[in-house]
Amino acid sequence: MTFIKIPRRKFFFTILIFFTLYTTINSQQLSTNKLQSYNELARTIVRKALTERKGYDWLKELCNIGPRLSGSEKSLKAIHWAEKKMKSLGFDSVWLQPVMVPKWERGKIENAFVSSSKKYKNKKLTIASFGGSIGTPAKGITAELIEVKSLDEAKALGDKAKGKIIFYNRPFDNGLLSTFEGYGKAVDQRMNGAIEAAKVGAIGAIVRSIQSSYDNIPHTGVMNYQDGVPNIPSAAIGVIDADFLSKAIKEEPDLKITLKMSCKNFPEAQSYNVIGQLTGSEKPDEIIVVGGHFDSWDKGCGAHDDGGPSLQTMEALNLLKENGVKPKRTIRCVLFINEENGLRGGIEYGKFAASSNDKHLAAIESDRGAFTPRGFYVTTDSLSLRKMQNWLPILNKANIDWIRNGGSGGDVGQIKNAKALLGYVPDDQRYMDLHHSANDVFSAVHPREMELGSAAIAIMSLLLSAEGL
Amino acid sequence: MTFIKIPRRKFFFTILIFFTLYTTINSQQLSTNKLQSYNELARTIVRKALTERKGYDWLKELCNIGPRLSGSEKSLKAIHWAEKKMKSLGFDSVWLQPVMVPKWERGKIENAFVSSSKKYKNKKLTIASFGGSIGTPAKGITAELIEVKSLDEAKALGDKAKGKIIFYNRPFDNGLLSTFEGYGKAVDQRMNGAIEAAKVGAIGAIVRSIQSSYDNIPHTGVMNYQDGVPNIPSAAIGVIDADFLSKAIKEEPDLKITLKMSCKNFPEAQSYNVIGQLTGSEKPDEIIVVGGHFDSWDKGCGAHDDGGPSLQTMEALNLLKENGVKPKRTIRCVLFINEENGLRGGIEYGKFAASSNDKHLAAIESDRGAFTPRGFYVTTDSLSLRKMQNWLPILNKANIDWIRNGGSGGDVGQIKNAKALLGYVPDDQRYMDLHHSANDVFSAVHPREMELGSAAIAIMSLLLSAEGL
Repeated sequence: MTFIKIPRRKFFFTILIFFTLYTTINSQQLSTNKLQSYNELARTIVRKALTERKGYDWLKELCNIGPRLSGSEKSLKAIHWAEKKMKSLGFDSVWLQPVMVPKWERGKIENAFVSSSKKYKNKKLTIASFGGSIGTPAKGITAELIEVKSLDEAKALGDKAKGKIIFYNRPFDNGLLSTFEGYGKAVDQRMNGAIEAAKVGAIGAIVRSIQSSYDNIPHTGVMNYQDGVPNIPSAAIGVIDADFLSKAIKEEPDLKITLKMSCKNFPEAQSYNVIGQLTGSEKPDEIIVVGGHFDSWDKGCGAHDDGGPSLQTMEALNLLKENGVKPKRTIRCVLFINEENGLRGGIEYGKFAASSNDKHLAAIESDRGAFTPRGFYVTTDSLSLRKMQNWLPILNKANIDWIRNGGSGGDVGQIKNAKALLGYVPDDQRYMDLHHSANDVFSAVHPREMELGSAAIAIMSLLLSAEGL
Repeated sequence: MTFIKIPRRKFFFTILIFFTLYTTINSQQLSTNKLQSYNELARTIVRKALTERKGYDWLKELCNIGPRLSGSEKSLKAIHWAEKKMKSLGFDSVWLQPVMVPKWERGKIENAFVSSSKKYKNKKLTIASFGGSIGTPAKGITAELIEVKSLDEAKALGDKAKGKIIFYNRPFDNGLLSTFEGYGKAVDQRMNGAIEAAKVGAIGAIVRSIQSSYDNIPHTGVMNYQDGVPNIPSAAIGVIDADFLSKAIKEEPDLKITLKMSCKNFPEAQSYNVIGQLTGSEKPDEIIVVGGHFDSWDKGCGAHDDGGPSLQTMEALNLLKENGVKPKRTIRCVLFINEENGLRGGIEYGKFAASSNDKHLAAIESDRGAFTPRGFYVTTDSLSLRKMQNWLPILNKANIDWIRNGGSGGDVGQIKNAKALLGYVPDDQRYMDLHHSANDVFSAVHPREMELGSAAIAIMSLLLSAEGL
């Protein structure tokens, strides 16, 4: 018999490395007993969510109040409704965090029509003023249109643009898998279209509604102005009307449209984040935040953006509480105000988190619609990511198939000192049909899809609270 | 220096085992170049599906023909429409495979009402006769109701059931994650309710509509009779009416209802599977089948069950063809007739596959709705499963997150000699709201969700064809 000789020291060193690696990875894994009991709890939470549908019922109540544009009377009514609801649920602490927010109103007049044309005179056009836009004079603004497909094309117009209305008409790219990516690639027209138009002397800007569907219901959203550049009115135009206009001005380049908009900016207003928590039984000063934004645009009622998703986070706490869970670390629900046109709620909470003695361990944002769950995006270190990925068999009970590196959300992104920032990710295929539009109403939300999201967030926050990172 | 001694033979043997395992697993993986080119093709296929939406347009044409109940005139019209469509797309071979199918018609009369009651007399009830049920005499059947929650409860009724109508009222369990599981746990009432009722002398059976939603639109479906047991009429009753009846007969146990149904069974009829293929360039006799069933129930137009999903498989071939793919192995689309009430199309194709000299490598069924993709279930050996799982980064371009062991589908399940049977799995949360009901119409299908499914099936069949198993 012959033998292979390996130096003893090298051998033990190798063994040591393997052992260290093994135990590091293994320490991230749950024991069979724990896994079983979490699985059982997850099933109970899912069943409770799907059969009782409390979050879905709350969303109906919320939508009955109306849209929740920052600074509006209805937004305050909704805030007080949420505060009262959290108290009635018996959360350990419930409070309002004061936040000053921008205030903008659409006003009563918002119309557009073809005002000069051989063929199309007086044809009505469907528009939706962008949030933050100034209005027009009472008689409106009337001008010829110049169609462009990008900000660069607008910049290049030079003097030709003077006195005109710039018509941004680059369509939403429906060829992409992610509708958020499609949105991201079109939204510069809305955000900065008025600025670039004004720089070349235009008096207004209209933008092809940014949406994945083909209809004539325009989607609103926030827009920017720039110091030193004239503020000009800007609005979305329905996709069908955008196609009409594109064709019509090819036939009649001197066709004119008139825009009448009575929207207006007001002084900043007092508003609030609504906060409620289940205080941790062992580590009350370690915080898991779950939240979404509570404001919405004024079209529809913000059922998917972000009424349903924000209420999922409130329901998550309630699902845990009603299942008798006493979380080890504090689980705190934050309904952030003003994500849509200022992010003031998120910023204010971020400041509070930075100055607080509490430790923000993790924060989960729900702001991608109330559709069927798919996964969680996480920004964290690789060991924490691995640890969470080990929880997938449990989260799978609520339809969560993956946990991946990715961005969380605007509001929780302001909690700079958290160890992990998570974004709850439901399916997004229908989201951009209704986002920021009159289509975003209660009936567009499916109870099972929304409730599975509540359950997924409940399970993830429970695991973060119990297992830490 | 000291040394650890390992017997030489043992050492080399260990190395050999590791090497064999490593190369076996590694041989299943795609080279970086291949992966890149598949990824690129997958992106192109997804973009083409999402922007051209041909399958979605075809579904609109198909739904305009009407429902496609086996043996009906409209089913034959649809079959010839599909044959013509496949020919116009330039598939390499297109043919009809003759299949004899059961024929049942609902007829014009289908109503129910409370016929004897102090409080509720003449209240209308919404019913849907089950496929295969006999009708009632023209004057209807009139009887008291006995409510039960299970077949066992019905069996235990004994003489009490004589001359009565048995009312199966066990609800769909909405607490389960999978709506297919919820369906599976309720459907015995529909399948065998009439048999058990007749055995104890009942003259009819009504069954709480099997669905996840709460409305009054009853869902139909197939039912069984048993030799030697009297055939009695059986129908679904709307969920809201079921709740009403349950309450009403507690108030008035002698309340009677009348059922009038003119449904009828006819002699078997001639029908067809529609088959078209892209013939393999290198291994034409190795077959990848993709398909779904082309028949539907007569309520709605079977947009999700199974018009859209079956057309996804036709579109999959077209997406490959129009992207210039010449598949190595044959990819064959089979639109099976009569899955709903006989499975005759699947059985007939299975016989053909068994007797053919061709080798059926794999078959993919699409019969779970035209919703957003999630994964594929596969029945195969572990090495083939692993091989397919290595394709996930490519399939992920069409929203496929997983490939798991699981059942394929009724029709492809008849191809007993295939190496792998796959079931395409979209999200199922909304499916049981509309399945087999008047809600299953074109407008319930979302174009992006349906088209991603077509792309997913195209990519999977391409990979099976190119890489084999």
